Amino acid sequence: MLTFIKPTLVLDERRARRNIERMAERAGRLGVRFRPHFKTHQSHHVGRIFREFGVEAITVSSVDMASYFAADGWKDILIAFPLNILEIGEICRLASRCSLGLLVESPEGLPALAESVAAPVGIWIKVNVGANRAGVDWNDRDLLTKICREAVRHPRLRLRGLLTHNGRTYAARTSDALARVHADALRKMRRARQALAAAGFRDLEISVGDTPSCSRLDDFDGVDEIRPGNFVLNDVMQLELGICGEKDIAATVACPVVSTHPARNEAVIYGGAIHLSKEDVFSRKEGRIYGRVCRLHGAGWGKILPRTLVSSISQEHGVVKTTASELKKLKAGDILFVLPVHSCLTVNLWKEFIRLDGVKIPTIRSFDI
Amino acid sequence: MLTFIKPTLVLDERRARRNIERMAERAGRLGVRFRPHFKTHQSHHVGRIFREFGVEAITVSSVDMASYFAADGWKDILIAFPLNILEIGEICRLASRCSLGLLVESPEGLPALAESVAAPVGIWIKVNVGANRAGVDWNDRDLLTKICREAVRHPRLRLRGLLTHNGRTYAARTSDALARVHADALRKMRRARQALAAAGFRDLEISVGDTPSCSRLDDFDGVDEIRPGNFVLNDVMQLELGICGEKDIAATVACPVVSTHPARNEAVIYGGAIHLSKEDVFSRKEGRIYGRVCRLHGAGWGKILPRTLVSSISQEHGVVKTTASELKKLKAGDILFVLPVHSCLTVNLWKEFIRLDGVKIPTIRSFDI
Repeated sequence: MLTFIKPTLVLDERRARRNIERMAERAGRLGVRFRPHFKTHQSHHVGRIFREFGVEAITVSSVDMASYFAADGWKDILIAFPLNILEIGEICRLASRCSLGLLVESPEGLPALAESVAAPVGIWIKVNVGANRAGVDWNDRDLLTKICREAVRHPRLRLRGLLTHNGRTYAARTSDALARVHADALRKMRRARQALAAAGFRDLEISVGDTPSCSRLDDFDGVDEIRPGNFVLNDVMQLELGICGEKDIAATVACPVVSTHPARNEAVIYGGAIHLSKEDVFSRKEGRIYGRVCRLHGAGWGKILPRTLVSSISQEHGVVKTTASELKKLKAGDILFVLPVHSCLTVNLWKEFIRLDGVKIPTIRSFDI
Repeated sequence: MLTFIKPTLVLDERRARRNIERMAERAGRLGVRFRPHFKTHQSHHVGRIFREFGVEAITVSSVDMASYFAADGWKDILIAFPLNILEIGEICRLASRCSLGLLVESPEGLPALAESVAAPVGIWIKVNVGANRAGVDWNDRDLLTKICREAVRHPRLRLRGLLTHNGRTYAARTSDALARVHADALRKMRRARQALAAAGFRDLEISVGDTPSCSRLDDFDGVDEIRPGNFVLNDVMQLELGICGEKDIAATVACPVVSTHPARNEAVIYGGAIHLSKEDVFSRKEGRIYGRVCRLHGAGWGKILPRTLVSSISQEHGVVKTTASELKKLKAGDILFVLPVHSCLTVNLWKEFIRLDGVKIPTIRSFDI
């Protein structure tokens, strides 16, 4: 049995494996390429589980992360973050080691890129279908065409297709709403592709990839590739959205209880923003939620404690709001398992997972490379 | 001049030094011991600047952080986090190397602690004056007395005093409100001390320490020690509260611009939650703010750009909302300096600062030790 003396990131690898298997099967059934996003786990070990299920192409969110996975033998890597031309040196080194895909949202960086790389790189156009974070507006035919025109001018650039991250699915609080925003995104992507085909740019692929739609929906008409990432661990955000069940959450942070406060039904845990991240999910009923809470159960963690949540968080402290009866069972020195709100941000804080069998699974943080 | 290719944590050491000097002078003038909290910078180098100003006693927020600073010769260290009895092994090792202070909020852990330590440790009682995070309620005379009684039973425990962190000063939006919540906290602390003196526990010290009150107020009647931390770097939170000026902010994250979106007056920067933390400050006028933004100026960063802020943030992306005229001056590849909302959480994400002269200043993250 695991023992803990301070906050510890714990991995239930059996659950992660099941999540991977399920998504790989879905991708197969949907007839799309499965290019999972590896920013969630940032771990060679977890990456290798994907390989067992036939995955050969991956997504990452930085040049550094691409280097980390290239070092473990990954040969087809897409950096799903807008081209940062200042990193051109490292991009060129990477392009010589693997088949590299890059994201652009303007034609400006392309000539410099084409001049610098020795091996061909794939060019994906980031398309904005309404999330308004980054990307070319799906109906900005002029800009889309300009980028394509510039890309095909250079033999070392290989125009691949259109890519979006439909972040609006995270605001969809019902299945209907999810299906609606997803269908809307696909319609816009197909229209953009059509417009470019009419302008002479044929055979462009469509790449999409948010965990909510990839986990729950079956209509991927016209899509060539999906890039979900979060599903491998899931988290309280996915749970609140109804995208996963609590048994699909594969990572928690084990936190020692340091005090209990019966007058306000609260416990203070050693586990704060530097262990969980400060991500919250807002619930009208419960306010800002920083995590759900479980107790030890067998070789892992048990069910989510009823009417219990991490209600506030500072650098090292978390405050767990619970019921009088749950609080009575708690004392300083006990361990609570906190299910994180956003597993990607939580995992990025740690240098390793502890697996339920006690084995340490290294993971990188953004600046370890 | 500094050049950047990806997000980089930048330190203006001259400003940090000025902030330290000012607070050391204030503590001297107020006649209180200055025991700065080192969780903000987590850096041996910055710690040594404090030494130049006569600081000998420090505060940290974890056993690991205490070990890190003990390794640099600090001899008087207070761990301002409730005793986590599971870490008793490391606590004992530390107690043999330095004069260690610990925080308790119940008598339970004390016998085990007293049995294990070879050298005496200082015991501070964490008092809740209204922030309701941790601590014994200031007017819970029974519990306060019980803890004192238990502490004095053990020759290896040295009962030192009462400690609070008055987090409510962060909700005070005017100078009057700040003065009021501060005065209220001090009154409660003095009353608690009085009650314990009446019960036979004399000469207990009072330790307080939040950056807003320590930066701005002059009434520390009855206080023996202040423990501010954030002031060394300051941040957008302190700025919004009117506690510091923008020239007192000593750390920023340099972020490359990766795209501009004139239709919505936004730029996307390479700089997200893993570089800044997901801490926000809420403004009724502007919504959630994730950072303020400056441009390069001389050997550092310039003034905060008017009507410009980081309005949303994901793992690697930040969206900067700005004006049409500011946006016109920006292009992909430019560097923006983002002033963080909460410098402690931001710095904890990095393994080093880059000083304005290009020298790397190592800093630890929670799990580097």
